[in-house]
Amino acid sequence: MIDLRSDTVTRPTEAMRAAMARAEVGDDVYGEDPTVTRLEERVAEMFGKQAAVFMPTGSLANVLAVRALVGPGEEVLCESAAHIARAELGAHGAVSGLTMRTWHHPRGQVDLGQIRTLFAPDLGPYFVQTRAIAVENTHNFAGGAVLPLDDLKALRAFADEAGCGIHLDGARIWNAHVATGVPLAEYGAVADVLSVCLSKGLGAPVGSLTVGPADLMAETRVRRKRMGAGMRQVGVLAAAGLHALDHHVERLADDHTHARLLAEACGLDPAGVDTNIVVLPRDDAPGFVARAKAEGVLVSAVGPTTVRLVTHLDVTRGDAERAAAVLATL
Amino acid sequence: MIDLRSDTVTRPTEAMRAAMARAEVGDDVYGEDPTVTRLEERVAEMFGKQAAVFMPTGSLANVLAVRALVGPGEEVLCESAAHIARAELGAHGAVSGLTMRTWHHPRGQVDLGQIRTLFAPDLGPYFVQTRAIAVENTHNFAGGAVLPLDDLKALRAFADEAGCGIHLDGARIWNAHVATGVPLAEYGAVADVLSVCLSKGLGAPVGSLTVGPADLMAETRVRRKRMGAGMRQVGVLAAAGLHALDHHVERLADDHTHARLLAEACGLDPAGVDTNIVVLPRDDAPGFVARAKAEGVLVSAVGPTTVRLVTHLDVTRGDAERAAAVLATL
Amino acid sequence: MIDLRSDTVTRPTEAMRAAMARAEVGDDVYGEDPTVTRLEERVAEMFGKQAAVFMPTGSLANVLAVRALVGPGEEVLCESAAHIARAELGAHGAVSGLTMRTWHHPRGQVDLGQIRTLFAPDLGPYFVQTRAIAVENTHNFAGGAVLPLDDLKALRAFADEAGCGIHLDGARIWNAHVATGVPLAEYGAVADVLSVCLSKGLGAPVGSLTVGPADLMAETRVRRKRMGAGMRQVGVLAAAGLHALDHHVERLADDHTHARLLAEACGLDPAGVDTNIVVLPRDDAPGFVARAKAEGVLVSAVGPTTVRLVTHLDVTRGDAERAAAVLATL
Amino acid sequence: MIDLRSDTVTRPTEAMRAAMARAEVGDDVYGEDPTVTRLEERVAEMFGKQAAVFMPTGSLANVLAVRALVGPGEEVLCESAAHIARAELGAHGAVSGLTMRTWHHPRGQVDLGQIRTLFAPDLGPYFVQTRAIAVENTHNFAGGAVLPLDDLKALRAFADEAGCGIHLDGARIWNAHVATGVPLAEYGAVADVLSVCLSKGLGAPVGSLTVGPADLMAETRVRRKRMGAGMRQVGVLAAAGLHALDHHVERLADDHTHARLLAEACGLDPAGVDTNIVVLPRDDAPGFVARAKAEGVLVSAVGPTTVRLVTHLDVTRGDAERAAAVLATL
Repeated sequence: MIDLRSDTVTRPTEAMRAAMARAEVGDDVYGEDPTVTRLEERVAEMFGKQAAVFMPTGSLANVLAVRALVGPGEEVLCESAAHIARAELGAHGAVSGLTMRTWHHPRGQVDLGQIRTLFAPDLGPYFVQTRAIAVENTHNFAGGAVLPLDDLKALRAFADEAGCGIHLDGARIWNAHVATGVPLAEYGAVADVLSVCLSKGLGAPVGSLTVGPADLMAETRVRRKRMGAGMRQVGVLAAAGLHALDHHVERLADDHTHARLLAEACGLDPAGVDTNIVVLPRDDAPGFVARAKAEGVLVSAVGPTTVRLVTHLDVTRGDAERAAAVLATL
Repeated sequence: MIDLRSDTVTRPTEAMRAAMARAEVGDDVYGEDPTVTRLEERVAEMFGKQAAVFMPTGSLANVLAVRALVGPGEEVLCESAAHIARAELGAHGAVSGLTMRTWHHPRGQVDLGQIRTLFAPDLGPYFVQTRAIAVENTHNFAGGAVLPLDDLKALRAFADEAGCGIHLDGARIWNAHVATGVPLAEYGAVADVLSVCLSKGLGAPVGSLTVGPADLMAETRVRRKRMGAGMRQVGVLAAAGLHALDHHVERLADDHTHARLLAEACGLDPAGVDTNIVVLPRDDAPGFVARAKAEGVLVSAVGPTTVRLVTHLDVTRGDAERAAAVLATL
Repeated sequence: MIDLRSDTVTRPTEAMRAAMARAEVGDDVYGEDPTVTRLEERVAEMFGKQAAVFMPTGSLANVLAVRALVGPGEEVLCESAAHIARAELGAHGAVSGLTMRTWHHPRGQVDLGQIRTLFAPDLGPYFVQTRAIAVENTHNFAGGAVLPLDDLKALRAFADEAGCGIHLDGARIWNAHVATGVPLAEYGAVADVLSVCLSKGLGAPVGSLTVGPADLMAETRVRRKRMGAGMRQVGVLAAAGLHALDHHVERLADDHTHARLLAEACGLDPAGVDTNIVVLPRDDAPGFVARAKAEGVLVSAVGPTTVRLVTHLDVTRGDAERAAAVLATL
Repeated sequence: MIDLRSDTVTRPTEAMRAAMARAEVGDDVYGEDPTVTRLEERVAEMFGKQAAVFMPTGSLANVLAVRALVGPGEEVLCESAAHIARAELGAHGAVSGLTMRTWHHPRGQVDLGQIRTLFAPDLGPYFVQTRAIAVENTHNFAGGAVLPLDDLKALRAFADEAGCGIHLDGARIWNAHVATGVPLAEYGAVADVLSVCLSKGLGAPVGSLTVGPADLMAETRVRRKRMGAGMRQVGVLAAAGLHALDHHVERLADDHTHARLLAEACGLDPAGVDTNIVVLPRDDAPGFVARAKAEGVLVSAVGPTTVRLVTHLDVTRGDAERAAAVLATL
């Protein structure tokens, strides 16, 4: 089976397992796990931020990052297909008690015109106030689309003027970085808080981080405990993340090449594939998924007429070519 | 002072006060207030529904109507300037734990193309599911705009096919009814649940209702108690509502005439004013508000560059003409 | 029917209805209802506090009073049969997100020994912290029991030393005041925030207030709006409350006399009845309720083996005597 | 340093690390991690239940176990020093929206008399209903006290008759099992749902499970995702848990011996120490903690006058003897 359902399916490599096996650990609820601390400090520094907090999932990293900026009864704006709006089971409302309004862009991009229309300033205690704008880079359901740095900078300028925060859902910020060459710290500079994930393209088994100012991250650490996510000797997982940062960032370029190869085989313009995700419009997405599976290729339906292919660490050049050959015939 | 800030500012008439003073009452928490029961049954019947529940405010009527269709972690779609999204202090997230995505229409209209794009079917327990679509008729922040019945019927057809509910925020459904002649029951027929308000155009001091199927309204009654809104001898308020239904519906036509008169005086095309609300773009909305006040006319800023004028029961033809003369000079 | 189910069943008197009918009103969401403002200021002053906020129910008055002192994830301590724990449908958890621990006293009293054991100081971000202690005076489910002022003063001293707040559920504080002669301001002095109710013993149809410091009450006013309880020309209800304060406080002594008369007829020691509530242990409470109803006396079961009788404004001396005669025979 | 602060501080052994390094893994969000599945099935079977769900922490295992039985606005009863009441940052209220009442027992025991008094049956939609009773075995803040099986059986009988559920917080159920010889399945039989922890006495770095009926566990799996705790290749952690079940259960007897040894050295009756926790009353708990640390022994203050010592996998006989010698002199 060639598994193109998601870049979350990667298994740790032997070298990563070895790193995990020798990780120095301690009780991280007491702040005593040196490997976790090293990972948190390293990631914070990569993005030019003061602090980072290890999280069990990208979803929680997003939920607590947004919550750091937006309280109950307040509002975050995001694109309508954003992961925070679509794929976190409504936790931002159900758990954080905050509310959303959305703009729509078929490629998940910043649309400053729409955002200006939506933005709600403080008009007194009768109206909901916009406290943050969230962007996702790369944008998962828009097919791994990259958000251009200039758009992010323009959004930053708007947010500064308007007096609200920015959350960057950077689950796949590594892919954006490799695809564009933009330094991670430049992405960090446009956001107040961000989330990054180690268990997607980077291939760690488990782990994400929320990144931001020291005071907000201290609050985030308490909220993480309330969410039941204050783990103990979790350095065994952090070690995988450190290994991934050392060894699995630059190689994402291969995933991007493989994705373009798949897109072309499926009759799409490869220039439309920014990174490692291919969104395939197909009349009968579930049927397509079933037929591909019968031919040894796992893909996923993310809508009734939308198939998604994702390349990753466990898909070799040969795998990509074989999958391309299969999908081309369906 | 001529008060055009909102149609919520009306004071009960002498006849309404007399009706309140002689209202037969009982303990409505025990279901024993005959006036409340009469009002609930009458309003349910007007909209062709099985049941209605009296509420202290239009906000709570909306919050519990949406909650009747949408649970924690689930989603309602609405227009981005909807009252439920903008003016209920985020209660749908903060209290009900549900989440929203929004389409935008400058006149607050149903946009079926955008709604189709947003709609999220049940794709299993990884994605948020759309459980209801909310519309507002007339649409407050879109200037009292009427939603055409045909659009509502098309939305109903879409919702039936897609398997989701419809909430109609009918705080000013009376204005839509009077402006278009569409029977109230036809509006009721396009919605699963709706809210209606007695204390805006109709001139009652306090009171709204959530209207819908008997089973959902029974649940709503329990949730109302949890929200601290199960009042006792509240027939004194329901009596005002019954009086308003008898005497203050048809006269809304006058408010609509007065609103067009104001629009014209302010340089707007009166044909753009569907009902009793005029939205005035003004560079410096707070400044305009202050200058109007100095001249004896109260208006409100609902955005940094947006002034709103609302006509109602306490604004006579003469008041409207005097206000028009004042505003024309600012 | 003689209705002894609750003191919530009273109907407004003719004089109260007249006061309501002539009430001067305005839009209280804008803070412009002079009758509401007069009531809020008068009640605040009666208890020696800075501010008060009108509420549609005693439940909401309690929910927002406790919320003023205790945030999500924090704790309030209360007696295990307190109204806030038993009869508000879990709103303190469901809506406010706070948590409770309870002590037990068969007469609903302050038990400082138990409270000291329960009290949780700030031990850092691993433990829930006690932010308030709530007491109820008189205590409804403990049979209208009065809390002695000395006990409240001792609790105040403990709370001051421990660094937490006190909420006084004063739905029936008027009964305590009349029964003991303790000035209302002395009760106000032992609490940080309190709730008082106009629609129980005082006989107003609807209305309660949350009372406390100006800053907390300003926050409470915003939360009230989020709860959908920001009503408009609600001076019609506030007028009933003002009338009740003028005319229905001292007469509560009659209710207390009637309650003792009923207790004696039912074989209880009348000295055990502090105010207007009689708790009757009966093997088959629902059966007793049914038999009493058949004889023209309404009483309520508040537990499988607990019947409750409540005297109030609409129960005359003659009613009490007739009910006593009936209940004595069951 | 000899670390007696908590049994959460254990570090994985070499053999456990080796088991983790060779764990077969998959994407557990898709239900494809064979090691996680093996652990879940094994633990479910140990307790005679249908299903189990892996959790990142004991806190989340408790939060979602209670939530499986108790909904928003409903009630769980527990002992006042229970971990769910004291040490989960109010998540049961803040996240689950449920409410608690508590009984008190100095040794954390079941007190059926108090429970009967607290228990709230379904009295209609005016009252909070008790939906579950939670017990903790062994009871952490009561010093690792064991709950006798006969008491649990009596509670089960009461719950069955009363129509409510039982949650067993079994974070340290292994200690109870080893101390008493009661089979794990007998503990499972008295509870509807339970939580068990792998990272306390058993020495795994991270991991707990919620255990119960298949339908409730299916719902729990969805709620786990909403809480941001649906991890990916988490078999690396589950492998540690499986190893711990194979190798670290029976040896808990040593921890119990060491705890009694410490108790005796501190002047307590060792017969009062049921398992691996010693609660030491000391006038100045923080001062005692500091002095012990200066002598190379870490202990913790869990109250202003309460010191806690906990033995575990990383405390050898020699460590226990050295710590005893130090603590005896303070």
